Amino acid sequence: MGAGLGGSWADGSTRSAIEDFVGRVTTRGPDFVEPADRVAVFDNDGTLWCEKPMPIQLDFTIRRFAEMAAGDSDLQQTQPWKAAHEHDLQWLGAAMVKHYRGDDGDLKLLMGAVTEAFDSITVENYDARVRSFFDDADHPTLGRPYSGCGYAPMVELLRYLEANGFTIYIASGGDRDFMRPVAGRLYGIPPERVIGSALGLSYREGADTSDLLYKAAMDFFDDGPEKPVRIWSRIGRRPILSVGNSNGDLPMLAFSGLPDRPALRVLILHDDADREFDYVAGAEQALEHARGKNWTVVSMKNDWTSIFSPAVT
Amino acid sequence: MGAGLGGSWADGSTRSAIEDFVGRVTTRGPDFVEPADRVAVFDNDGTLWCEKPMPIQLDFTIRRFAEMAAGDSDLQQTQPWKAAHEHDLQWLGAAMVKHYRGDDGDLKLLMGAVTEAFDSITVENYDARVRSFFDDADHPTLGRPYSGCGYAPMVELLRYLEANGFTIYIASGGDRDFMRPVAGRLYGIPPERVIGSALGLSYREGADTSDLLYKAAMDFFDDGPEKPVRIWSRIGRRPILSVGNSNGDLPMLAFSGLPDRPALRVLILHDDADREFDYVAGAEQALEHARGKNWTVVSMKNDWTSIFSPAVT
Repeated sequence: MGAGLGGSWADGSTRSAIEDFVGRVTTRGPDFVEPADRVAVFDNDGTLWCEKPMPIQLDFTIRRFAEMAAGDSDLQQTQPWKAAHEHDLQWLGAAMVKHYRGDDGDLKLLMGAVTEAFDSITVENYDARVRSFFDDADHPTLGRPYSGCGYAPMVELLRYLEANGFTIYIASGGDRDFMRPVAGRLYGIPPERVIGSALGLSYREGADTSDLLYKAAMDFFDDGPEKPVRIWSRIGRRPILSVGNSNGDLPMLAFSGLPDRPALRVLILHDDADREFDYVAGAEQALEHARGKNWTVVSMKNDWTSIFSPAVT
Repeated sequence: MGAGLGGSWADGSTRSAIEDFVGRVTTRGPDFVEPADRVAVFDNDGTLWCEKPMPIQLDFTIRRFAEMAAGDSDLQQTQPWKAAHEHDLQWLGAAMVKHYRGDDGDLKLLMGAVTEAFDSITVENYDARVRSFFDDADHPTLGRPYSGCGYAPMVELLRYLEANGFTIYIASGGDRDFMRPVAGRLYGIPPERVIGSALGLSYREGADTSDLLYKAAMDFFDDGPEKPVRIWSRIGRRPILSVGNSNGDLPMLAFSGLPDRPALRVLILHDDADREFDYVAGAEQALEHARGKNWTVVSMKNDWTSIFSPAVT
């Protein structure tokens, strides 16, 4: 075991729980785990980067709607492209509020358009669009570029785990190919270790080149019980450490470890309205489960001395 | 660039084509490729290990049929379990012959049973079954254990590529989780770098442990145009080197590289009846394509001084 966690983790029981676990699995003894089996999985939205007031990927997609509507007067009159074209974030917010009140009509319009937004675009073209977005786009309220919305203590944790022989994967409900182009820049995680939701892909063979194009349909949504399925499909090993922040992460956390093997499950609690956001909506069951099972809950307010990483170019 | 290919590759144009390519992409110059992008993909059946007289996985599954039939007198009267129970390989061979003659009835029976053979078994239980099979089972005609049916020149090629900064993935039509438990032993490839066909998985949460169980249905068959899709899904990069032996590998080979980037596509030709098998069935289009495009064709008879790796325990 090398040095401990970095300085953005406050001293206390949370930091100790992580360092104690890493000490046990890296020291010859009853809890020792071979380096090849030191697999750690991290959710992304709300775990590695900020997900409020809306997921970063949604902002990216709304800009795509505006681009689609720019030359199309029909789309300019049709939701959700109309809202994007007019920079009407109220319509988008209202769609979410209606959804919570049981009226899914506008949210379905929105999600259908999200699924179709990159129809027939090649994987390389999409990659370039994502990179360009992260070169320019700013978070709407935090006064930071999106490329500076990763959490500094989490990046420190990734490096600390790697220094102790762990291999890190992202396992997120977010779109896999949206995270891949920037996971290296923000987290030092290469594309082959990014697991996420996926649009269908179709193969097209041309005279000079063969391409993969996105379909206007999801292949799978990597959340809840789908997360362990996708983790196994990608890695072929059970994680021994998993970190999430919402109900959709529960199966991933439960799948980590076996009764006779050590495992650490960690939940990030967003309780810092001053420096980030304060919310538990969508995490109620996860927090209840964590308390009942004695999992590790990270208070952003108390356990983190700093929140955000510097923007990465 | 380090030393050249190992001694099981004969001197000649095939060996030179591989060494020249590796030299170009590892030397600073117009064809240089960064190590992170030196991705190589290998088919498995007929490319890394022997696939005749039947795929190794089929032999494994037939033994499972016999196990299922052992305590079930109804199954003992029902094909294909009956054939497995009675060690009647003729029925199984005839099913293939009928298929080639346009009568798919028996083959459908067989493939349906293959899909259902591991219904509700956990991923860990399946892993243990595969390991046990490779500890014991022998090839039916070659007089070697299955664990000694990998091709020595291919294992040399894998190590040579790794020594030159390549990362190797298996991309096979065979079942992903059948290859994973032995890809380390036979090829030095870890489970996270084995891509293949997959049964569906379902997640089951218990009081003490959470498990993944196989469904009695395929998730996808990783062959033909599905291969590039699965390669991208797993790796998020295009390969620059790909090796296969059949028509189902054509899209994978075509997807490797881009017009302005170097790529090497290799086909293994089974032309050695004395030391292995001599066949082109199922590879006709691939060979025609390879000759038209000036891809590299490996003659097992002329380019390989030895065929099989020693059995690995």
